[in-house]
Amino acid sequence: MDTDSADQRLADYQSLLEIGVELAGSLDLNRVLELALDRAEKLCRAETSSVWQLDESSSELYFRVVRGRVAGDIRHQRVKLGEGIVGRVAQSGEGEIVNDVRSDPRWRGDLASAFQTRAILAVPLRARGRRVGVLQLLNPIDKESFDLEDLERMRLFAAPLGPAIDNARLYTALKSLYLDTVTALAEAVEKRDPYTGGHVRRVVLYSVLLGHEMGLDYADLDRLRIASTLHDVGKIAVPDEVLRKPAPLDDNEYSIMKRHTIDGAEILSRIPELRDILPGVRSHHERLDGEGYPDGLREEEIPLNARIIAVADTYDAMTSTRPYRKALEHDVAVAEIRRGSGTQFCPRVVAAFESLVANGELTVETGRAVMARLFGETSQV
Amino acid sequence: MDTDSADQRLADYQSLLEIGVELAGSLDLNRVLELALDRAEKLCRAETSSVWQLDESSSELYFRVVRGRVAGDIRHQRVKLGEGIVGRVAQSGEGEIVNDVRSDPRWRGDLASAFQTRAILAVPLRARGRRVGVLQLLNPIDKESFDLEDLERMRLFAAPLGPAIDNARLYTALKSLYLDTVTALAEAVEKRDPYTGGHVRRVVLYSVLLGHEMGLDYADLDRLRIASTLHDVGKIAVPDEVLRKPAPLDDNEYSIMKRHTIDGAEILSRIPELRDILPGVRSHHERLDGEGYPDGLREEEIPLNARIIAVADTYDAMTSTRPYRKALEHDVAVAEIRRGSGTQFCPRVVAAFESLVANGELTVETGRAVMARLFGETSQV
Repeated sequence: MDTDSADQRLADYQSLLEIGVELAGSLDLNRVLELALDRAEKLCRAETSSVWQLDESSSELYFRVVRGRVAGDIRHQRVKLGEGIVGRVAQSGEGEIVNDVRSDPRWRGDLASAFQTRAILAVPLRARGRRVGVLQLLNPIDKESFDLEDLERMRLFAAPLGPAIDNARLYTALKSLYLDTVTALAEAVEKRDPYTGGHVRRVVLYSVLLGHEMGLDYADLDRLRIASTLHDVGKIAVPDEVLRKPAPLDDNEYSIMKRHTIDGAEILSRIPELRDILPGVRSHHERLDGEGYPDGLREEEIPLNARIIAVADTYDAMTSTRPYRKALEHDVAVAEIRRGSGTQFCPRVVAAFESLVANGELTVETGRAVMARLFGETSQV
Repeated sequence: MDTDSADQRLADYQSLLEIGVELAGSLDLNRVLELALDRAEKLCRAETSSVWQLDESSSELYFRVVRGRVAGDIRHQRVKLGEGIVGRVAQSGEGEIVNDVRSDPRWRGDLASAFQTRAILAVPLRARGRRVGVLQLLNPIDKESFDLEDLERMRLFAAPLGPAIDNARLYTALKSLYLDTVTALAEAVEKRDPYTGGHVRRVVLYSVLLGHEMGLDYADLDRLRIASTLHDVGKIAVPDEVLRKPAPLDDNEYSIMKRHTIDGAEILSRIPELRDILPGVRSHHERLDGEGYPDGLREEEIPLNARIIAVADTYDAMTSTRPYRKALEHDVAVAEIRRGSGTQFCPRVVAAFESLVANGELTVETGRAVMARLFGETSQV
């Protein structure tokens, strides 16, 4: 090896070592992918790039992430294993360069009409001994063709990328499992109460919408999501004769019912990692004027999560039918929330509530879309 | 740079790139650490090595993992940030070589009497912009001293090791949170039933002990642990008048109680990732002779997890006091399980049960020790 090419390779290796560390530095899939495409394009000077993920159950590859102007058109495209250039690379496990795509019989044409592909470099991604996807670069910048050095560089680049993507996927999957399990159990608790079908899910959506509108950051919204999912879990300890009574409660029954706030926090208090969400569970029936329960907290003494859940919970209760009264009209419920601002509810939360109402965004659909954007797996950088 | 040293460095970098990929390939902390020490010792030819983890709450470093004959004596040692050589490296964030430890004023002496330290190479571990620990090598093999090339090599080696350890730690922490939350909710369900305090936790311990004795692998034991934690979660839907009746149930009440197996599986059925644990929840009251519920399955039709939970559940119920009968003596309960082998219980599970009993291992303490060894965080390779 001559000194020049040895120096070049040393510089390459040094970049690759640094990129490997960067890729390992996050378990957020979107961030790993965004970083990967940015570094890949810089390392090989390409016009655009994409990561395709293999769905083993259907033997199809789908766009996990793609950059640049082709993004919109192709994000829903799927390619069978073995089909086209990406499908072939996934199947064979061998990286490939195709410098004149039009002359390649397997070229299937551009997916996005705005983009014209000249040349492709594609390398397989592997993790834990399995193939997990393909990294693809399109069109070298300032030169006609990808060369073997580009291919070798991307082969080395793909080696840490596979595990980084897979680790982020596993972490995200475990997080989903956590939330799904907690939601299923919270809904089972809710089912004992015959009047509240779907209440938990809606309170979560409304709470996250409100928190998002108020500018809470990702970590705060994540805590709000868990707290709102578990806000009524203490009802597990409320006896049937109180929980299932088809009429308003008497004083004694009401004082039993009120205990669900304390019991909910108590159930979760043995889990150190949930320390931050306990206040949202315990205090979601407090009122700004100190007339709420269980602690009679006032104003800013009430944790923000609890003030948000209070509005979401009350709005959903008012707009749902109960055995002893019909659901209120949306407008009437909104007016009630507005009327409670400053006495029952936090004015900042009510302001966010009114803004969502004014924009027609206080809906289950908008809530689902915001949740998917915040916590969902699929991404488009 | 002359060609020889360039070649050496290229070879180093290539090894380091490969090791980075290996380290990223697991989220199992013990495996990451074992691999790291093995590769570090080979890369720098050292007699032994260790990883120290920083406990930020106490500003102390503790042995995360250590290899070789010094292991036994020092695993419980802790070192303050800034103290000794490891503590200083953690604080300064700069790697160090000390080739004659006896002349270093900060040398605190060997922790293990069987080992004599000559030279130390220590580099800091970082992840997500924070310091997380120290990697330490002791005594170079076949040479007197560690040199600057060793230090540089370990500095590059430590770069991907920090995030790899941190990712495994985050994954393990999320898994613990999952199990803690599910256990807390399962225990809240149990609390409605006034006669079963601590039942869930004991059934989990006994089930894992039985499965472990039967030679189940890690993944199976993990599923068994979750299934046994959730085995009675369907009791959430049993009305108070049945669940809390302080006397044996009549036929109608019994048929309501029996539904907890179906309800439990139903609650969890919406979670795709828990598909594998549903059979353990649904079928833990089946009997080998087909006289069980809810499906009257026979013999091998009954999933293994369910056959294991059945023995654990029955044994714990018999040895706990109920309002209408006292707890059975341990010997009487064991005889009952033995008598049920082949009719109520799976003979393979009963054989494991008898072997545990014979060795005095069917105890909460042994269960906790086995769980810690299987699923715990701390390790000694």
